[in-house]
Amino acid sequence: MIFKAEIDIMPIEAILDPQGKAVTQSMGNLGLNEISNVRIGKHITLKVEANDETTAKEKVDTACKKLLCNLIMETYTFTLVQA
Amino acid sequence: MIFKAEIDIMPIEAILDPQGKAVTQSMGNLGLNEISNVRIGKHITLKVEANDETTAKEKVDTACKKLLCNLIMETYTFTLVQA
Repeated sequence: MIFKAEIDIMPIEAILDPQGKAVTQSMGNLGLNEISNVRIGKHITLKVEANDETTAKEKVDTACKKLLCNLIMETYTFTLVQA
Repeated sequence: MIFKAEIDIMPIEAILDPQGKAVTQSMGNLGLNEISNVRIGKHITLKVEANDETTAKEKVDTACKKLLCNLIMETYTFTLVQA
């Protein structure tokens, strides 16, 4: 079975997100003063082949922990749907 | 009313995503051969103040079009929930 994973990786709340801060300021310059608290992370999609959903979840979890996410500065969440 | 928007910005399918390609290869090196088709985009969260959901949606749409998303190379989707 092939599953499609959608992973969100965000900087943890306690950490300053300079890119987000810069974008928040630019919103003001564009006349969008109503927009605030911009935080920027990564969105990753991938396909994973596995016999069942539990195995697929484990594989995606391993990929996040070992490669995609820096756990010191970032957190991740993901959803899995059968492709 | 304050709304929280979750925006996903992804490279369009027709465009090569070199970062995703590199990560796909690295998955193999980590023993995760079951993972393929990695594509990497941005995940952005922000707060928007508006009188109603329609106005909030318009503001986020403007922000995406004018600042966050390069429409030539990327597509965006977003969801809005009341904070």
